[in-house]
Amino acid sequence: MKKERISNNVIRRLPMYLRKLDDLIAHGVDRISSNELGKQMGFTPSQIRQDFSCFGEFGQQGYGYRVTELREQVARILGMKQGFTVIIVGVGNMGHALIKNFGFDAQGFKLTAAFDSSPDLIGKVIDGVPIYDSETLNAWCKENPTDIAVLTVPSVIARDMAKTLADCGVKGIWNFTNIELELDRPEVRVENIHFSDSLLYLGYIINESENEKNSPTH
Amino acid sequence: MKKERISNNVIRRLPMYLRKLDDLIAHGVDRISSNELGKQMGFTPSQIRQDFSCFGEFGQQGYGYRVTELREQVARILGMKQGFTVIIVGVGNMGHALIKNFGFDAQGFKLTAAFDSSPDLIGKVIDGVPIYDSETLNAWCKENPTDIAVLTVPSVIARDMAKTLADCGVKGIWNFTNIELELDRPEVRVENIHFSDSLLYLGYIINESENEKNSPTH
Repeated sequence: MKKERISNNVIRRLPMYLRKLDDLIAHGVDRISSNELGKQMGFTPSQIRQDFSCFGEFGQQGYGYRVTELREQVARILGMKQGFTVIIVGVGNMGHALIKNFGFDAQGFKLTAAFDSSPDLIGKVIDGVPIYDSETLNAWCKENPTDIAVLTVPSVIARDMAKTLADCGVKGIWNFTNIELELDRPEVRVENIHFSDSLLYLGYIINESENEKNSPTH
Repeated sequence: MKKERISNNVIRRLPMYLRKLDDLIAHGVDRISSNELGKQMGFTPSQIRQDFSCFGEFGQQGYGYRVTELREQVARILGMKQGFTVIIVGVGNMGHALIKNFGFDAQGFKLTAAFDSSPDLIGKVIDGVPIYDSETLNAWCKENPTDIAVLTVPSVIARDMAKTLADCGVKGIWNFTNIELELDRPEVRVENIHFSDSLLYLGYIINESENEKNSPTH
């Protein structure tokens, strides 16, 4: 079966669809039309149909999408049942926060170890995750093939560490540093996290409420 | 001038447009058609035109969008020059990480103070941000009207703290806890951060590379 290449931009929208579908399931919604889904998510119905058509036909004309089935397909396409192995590199504040509070398991990822250079941390175990010496990263990865490295080191060493990780054979780097990584290694995918998208949205909706409150017609 | 109400879903895409436009500017692109912008971002040209048409005409038929001008407009609509005041509530790992590494200033927000209940933290100053006792939150906010509270407290106290913050008169809560806040206060906007969207995307593109590598035609 020839699989059509799906645009990365469609893929980027899949986690949003996933959350929306989970929400619909939680509210007992069995099926939904592309019109209604578009309305709830602010896309045109044709954008919705185009996004889903890329990976096969989930919907039926005049019937809409079966929510549970669509949710399963989206999760499958995202590879959520893949069991990717993850390490955290840099156990400062952000690294700690991710170990303690981000549910890697719930998203289908396996957090296997963390690395830091601080003698105060090396040898400790945080919430079941052992912390090893960054110096041993390469040797450790040889024994424990690792799919994804979460990069939470200080910015000044971000580029060097990214290179080390590429040498360790990781397939992807989830970059929490503010540094734009310029890896000359196309086989290593880099994904930057953008906190600001969410804050800017919040700023907008607050602004909008204010304007409504202050409008003379209100 | 009557301002049309813009769908929140369009607004949610504005930070993405902003990053894209910054990227185009950095690459010396002066203008871009809705076709090309759509191609680069994976939207249909009509989705692009619809998104931008909501807040006035930026594009010219047959000429496209002026990138710098469009970027300015998007920033303006997002209210990035508003100077919203922000406090961080909960100076654990995530709170620390945000104080130290998230550029509130660069996004147009003013981080004025942080709050925690730990005697070890109260009275300290981290990167210029004073940490006060959470007990004084209400009194402090009366003196220092605050637009946004970043909620980075432990999950067990998230709901109670959100109520306190609503009583303090904040207009928005940027929620980093895993708790779904059910505030009975429509005037307080809540925005949840979703780290997982970004990790799921990374998982997908890794998967895709693997499949290509293993495909017999490769």
